Amino acid sequence: MPPRKIPSRVIPVPDTVSPVLQKLIAHDNPEQFGKYLAPYLGPSPLKVPQTVDEWRAFVNTVPDPDFLEAFAEFRDKFGVKISELVISGVHCYEITPKISKPNTPNRLLFHLHGGGWVGGAGQSGLLEAIVTAGLTGYKVITVDYRLLPDHPFPAAMDDAMAVWKEIVKREKPGNVGMLGSSVGGSMVLSLVQRAKNEGIRLPGALMSGTPWSDLSETGDSYYTNEGVDNDLIRYPGFLEAVAKLYANGRDLKDPLLSPVYGDFRGFPPTLLITGTRDLFLSNTVRVQHQLLQAGVPAQLEVEEGQYHMCFIYAAGAGAPEGRELYSHVAQFFDAHLGR
Amino acid sequence: MPPRKIPSRVIPVPDTVSPVLQKLIAHDNPEQFGKYLAPYLGPSPLKVPQTVDEWRAFVNTVPDPDFLEAFAEFRDKFGVKISELVISGVHCYEITPKISKPNTPNRLLFHLHGGGWVGGAGQSGLLEAIVTAGLTGYKVITVDYRLLPDHPFPAAMDDAMAVWKEIVKREKPGNVGMLGSSVGGSMVLSLVQRAKNEGIRLPGALMSGTPWSDLSETGDSYYTNEGVDNDLIRYPGFLEAVAKLYANGRDLKDPLLSPVYGDFRGFPPTLLITGTRDLFLSNTVRVQHQLLQAGVPAQLEVEEGQYHMCFIYAAGAGAPEGRELYSHVAQFFDAHLGR
Repeated sequence: MPPRKIPSRVIPVPDTVSPVLQKLIAHDNPEQFGKYLAPYLGPSPLKVPQTVDEWRAFVNTVPDPDFLEAFAEFRDKFGVKISELVISGVHCYEITPKISKPNTPNRLLFHLHGGGWVGGAGQSGLLEAIVTAGLTGYKVITVDYRLLPDHPFPAAMDDAMAVWKEIVKREKPGNVGMLGSSVGGSMVLSLVQRAKNEGIRLPGALMSGTPWSDLSETGDSYYTNEGVDNDLIRYPGFLEAVAKLYANGRDLKDPLLSPVYGDFRGFPPTLLITGTRDLFLSNTVRVQHQLLQAGVPAQLEVEEGQYHMCFIYAAGAGAPEGRELYSHVAQFFDAHLGR
Repeated sequence: MPPRKIPSRVIPVPDTVSPVLQKLIAHDNPEQFGKYLAPYLGPSPLKVPQTVDEWRAFVNTVPDPDFLEAFAEFRDKFGVKISELVISGVHCYEITPKISKPNTPNRLLFHLHGGGWVGGAGQSGLLEAIVTAGLTGYKVITVDYRLLPDHPFPAAMDDAMAVWKEIVKREKPGNVGMLGSSVGGSMVLSLVQRAKNEGIRLPGALMSGTPWSDLSETGDSYYTNEGVDNDLIRYPGFLEAVAKLYANGRDLKDPLLSPVYGDFRGFPPTLLITGTRDLFLSNTVRVQHQLLQAGVPAQLEVEEGQYHMCFIYAAGAGAPEGRELYSHVAQFFDAHLGR
C-alpha cells in the first residue's frame, strides 16, 4: 500500500496551553527552563558521535552542564532533600520531599531516569525524580544505572534489577510504585516483565512516561510526529544510533529491548503519559493497548501540545499543566499502593 | 511566538495494525468498507455547499447512498434487530443485539450519531449504534435528531434532551450509558452539562468518541494532524462551514456549542476514544484534562494509526482492533452501570 505524502505545513504554538508551557513548546524561554533544553532542541538533530571515544565524550559532557544547572534549580525550587546511597552495590539517590503526605510513610516510589542511556548520569538524571517527589509528596529512590557506550544492554537493566531485588526485601512491594520516562519508561516496563520471569515481586502500581517501548522505527507517530516533536525530532540519526549501541547486536524488536513486544499479563495498574506532539505517542498508546488486552487497568493521559518528556520540564518550569499532571500521578499512586 | 514550519514528509501505512485496518488507513479497500468512505476521503476536502439549497441537497444526497449500503451490511453482519420508535415526539431507533449479555436486561445505552449535523439521517446514522450493540451485547436507543441546514443549534440538542428526559422516567438512569462519536461525542458531553443545569438525572457512565468538543479551530491537532487524518482532512473549508451553520450566529467557543469550555463537575465516569492520526486528538485529550481536573474518572484510549471515527469502521470491517476496542467499551459500561 502506497505511503502518503503530507505537504509542508505551519504549526502555531498552541494557544490551548499556559504561557509558561507555550514558551517551552516554542523553545522561546531562555530565562526559564528552555536554556537547559538547548542541546536537544532546534531544527537540526543532534550530531551523532561516530566512534566509541566520541560517544564517551558526548556522554561525559553533553548536555550535563545544562542539566546540572537545572538540577540545582529544581532542587531549590521544590525544596527536596537529596542523599546518596548504595543499594546492592549500585549508586542511587534518595529524594525526600519537603512536605510528605500523611499517608506516605510506608510508601515509596522507585524511579529510573531517562536520557537515552547516554544522558542522566549522576545528578543530571534527577530532574524527574525531584519533580515527582516535590509534587506528589512521595519519597523517591532513583537508580544511577550504568550508561553507554561502555555498558550496553543488559547493564542498565541489571543495575535496576539489583536495586529492585533489595527494595522488595526491605519494603512491602505493594507499597512501592515504580516510574520512569523515556528509556526510564521502557525500563520500568522491562523490569516488571523481567521480575515476573524471575519470580521477583512486582510493584503495587506503575507509571511509564512516554516510554521508548519499541527501539526500532516501528509505530505510526515515528512518522506522523517527525519534526512536530521538537525534543526528539526524528528517529533516523541520533535515536537510531543509540538504539543500536544499546542493543549491541541484538534485534531491536527483541522483547528484552523493546518491551511493547513482551508479555503484559499480571502487570500492576499502570499509568501512561504522552503528548499530542510526542514522537513516542505510538510507543505509549501501543503499550496501553497491550496492557488492556492483557486485562491490566491501564490509564492513559495525553498532554495537549506537548513533546517528548515535556511534562517534566513543564512541571519544573511551574506551568499549571505540570502541577495538574502530577496531581493525577499522586492520585494514581494514592489509589493503588498499599500501606 | 513564531509558528514552526514542518517540512513535507511521507507517512507510510502503519505496519503496527492489522491488514484490514491498514486497508482502511490506506484507503485502499474498495471491496470492503473503504468504498463507503469514498465521499469523505482523498486528498481534496469536500466541496463546501454555498447556499441553503445546496446544503439541503448535500444533506439529502451525500453520502447517504453509501452509508445506507454500509447500514445494510452492518445490520446483516452483526445480526441485530432494528425497530423504529417515537419517544417524546422524536424519531428513534432501537437496536437489539443478537446475543444480549446475561447482565444487560436492566441496562441500556443511549446513543447520538455523528455526521457533522449534515450526515447520519435515518438509517445512515446507525453504523455506530449497530457496531456497539453487536459487539457489546447492550441494547442501544439512538436518536434521529434534526439536522442542518434547516435546524441549527439547539434543535438537535433539544431532540436529544427530549428523548433523554423520557428515558430517565422509564429507566433507572444509573443503569443507562450514554455514548456517541464526533458531533455525537460532543453532544453527549453537552447533554450531560445541560442535564446538570436543568436538574435532570445523569447517565451512569459516558463514552465520548473523538468529540468535536471545540467548534472553533482551537487545539493543537487541528494543525499537527492536518492532512494526516484522511477522513476530516482539515478544518478550513467543510468543517468551518458546518460549525458556522450549526452555531447560527453564536460564538463558536460558546460552551453550549463547544462543551470543552463547559463545566465537567459531577460527570459520570467517562471513556474517551481517539486515534494518533485524529484531527480531533486535541479535542479529545482536552476534554479528558477538564474531566480529570473536575475529579471525574476519565479513561482515554488512543488507537494506533487511526483517523477520526476509524474505530467504528474498523469494527464494521472486522479488524481485530475494532473488536478489541469494543471489548474495552463493554468492560467500561459493565463496570460502571447499575442494574
